[in-house]
Amino acid sequence: MNIGYLGPVGTFSYQVAHRAFPEEQHTAYTTISECLDAVAANEIDVCLVPFENAIEGTVNVTLDYLYQNDVPPIQAEYILPISQNIMVNKQRSSDWQEATTVLSHPQGLAQCHDYLTKNFPHIKREAVSSTAFAAEYVSTHPDEKTLAIAPLFAAEHYDLDVVRANAQGNMHNETRFIALSNRKLAITDDPIETKTTLLLKLPDNDSGTLHTMLSTFAWRNINMSKIESRPTKTRLGQYFFHIDLDVGADNRLLDNAMVEISLLGGTVKVLGSYDVYKIK
Amino acid sequence: MNIGYLGPVGTFSYQVAHRAFPEEQHTAYTTISECLDAVAANEIDVCLVPFENAIEGTVNVTLDYLYQNDVPPIQAEYILPISQNIMVNKQRSSDWQEATTVLSHPQGLAQCHDYLTKNFPHIKREAVSSTAFAAEYVSTHPDEKTLAIAPLFAAEHYDLDVVRANAQGNMHNETRFIALSNRKLAITDDPIETKTTLLLKLPDNDSGTLHTMLSTFAWRNINMSKIESRPTKTRLGQYFFHIDLDVGADNRLLDNAMVEISLLGGTVKVLGSYDVYKIK
Repeated sequence: MNIGYLGPVGTFSYQVAHRAFPEEQHTAYTTISECLDAVAANEIDVCLVPFENAIEGTVNVTLDYLYQNDVPPIQAEYILPISQNIMVNKQRSSDWQEATTVLSHPQGLAQCHDYLTKNFPHIKREAVSSTAFAAEYVSTHPDEKTLAIAPLFAAEHYDLDVVRANAQGNMHNETRFIALSNRKLAITDDPIETKTTLLLKLPDNDSGTLHTMLSTFAWRNINMSKIESRPTKTRLGQYFFHIDLDVGADNRLLDNAMVEISLLGGTVKVLGSYDVYKIK
Repeated sequence: MNIGYLGPVGTFSYQVAHRAFPEEQHTAYTTISECLDAVAANEIDVCLVPFENAIEGTVNVTLDYLYQNDVPPIQAEYILPISQNIMVNKQRSSDWQEATTVLSHPQGLAQCHDYLTKNFPHIKREAVSSTAFAAEYVSTHPDEKTLAIAPLFAAEHYDLDVVRANAQGNMHNETRFIALSNRKLAITDDPIETKTTLLLKLPDNDSGTLHTMLSTFAWRNINMSKIESRPTKTRLGQYFFHIDLDVGADNRLLDNAMVEISLLGGTVKVLGSYDVYKIK
């Protein structure tokens, strides 16, 4: 199988792609949208993209794409622990504290916000497309006083000095990645949970009817483990809802709830019923 | 009064500060957190910060700060229509289509994503702290092939050429700004609506009880115009809820609902009951 992931080599998505599918072929994409485009067009068998970070919240690019486009179902979810580390070119190991710029993905910068504010109050924070790009830039620019924030394996890959490990503010940081595919995946690991993810649009965009819609799950004892709203991008105050339910596929109560929501005027798009795995 | 806003001169917050409080003194802050810190410390009388954009959704920095810190109540909300425009240094008016870099606030870049992808597929998109910073940079660097995405008044202020007006993808784009203050504001305009905003944390972080909590509003006919979840930043899967209700202050039914949520084990933080105004 061909596994597409959010590249380049050395990203967290790369790490998940290699740990979850070690024997398969891997293809890097430069943006989340391109990776999702590729699986929708059947150019790859599986698309692995980040969906939610414990600190920064949902990856809006992924959620908005899933709302706006037709894609294969989610077949599995992988949870990866996240650490962010400050690293520098080895030729700069002695004067790294004089750095004037720090590069990272916006989430890397956000996760190390407290460390940077305390230790580098005047440093220029520059957002780049990935933590791996930041590490590669620092490795190829020894003449610049620039730091990168990236995972440990990026330091190994690009031969950088880690000057501060675990610089992220929160020690329980994790990111969820989803695997979208038209094929059922044969996974031998034990899942930690099973869930169903759906997107709900209310009739005439009236959030006041949300309570009625949620009742269709509640009175059937279908537990909701997540709900969040996102703007539909048409006008201020119009939202769709991203809902996770603690049930798997082929659940008669869930099927009945969906029919009822439809009768009440709601629109439901099921993104998939799937198992969740933890990557160690 | 002293009105603090997210600066520098020329931002959308600047525009709201000057239109809503034309006669008052204005102080620019470089980050949303610093502006909120200042009103919490009584260094300014009113703090004006962005809270939600119709396309990009909630401004997470603002919401997370309000959840984590004690601040004066929201006294008013202002809705500003947003247009984003491509501008260039006047010395570059003839060769602007050869630009290699475009600068803007991340929301400016996101709002013009479709225009850039279609017209400048290979341009380097660089995120800076504000649209005003982008405009100022372009005005002071005529030698660089750089564009700025910023509002029209930034082009006036920094004497730039607008080469493409309304480059944002969405024509109904608006941003909500909130005014936090310990003082009641004397506003003579007619409000378009009145609402109450609160943050709700569920008992033992179980989203499954959300339906019960929302019932306390529903069976009292208190309409909910917005609900969204945000991670509490402690662990994946733990959220608080940001809820807008269509009621004002001194509402007995609302008071009863609050008491009931508390009895059910929920924690509520009321951010304010306030009027909403539209800026033309």
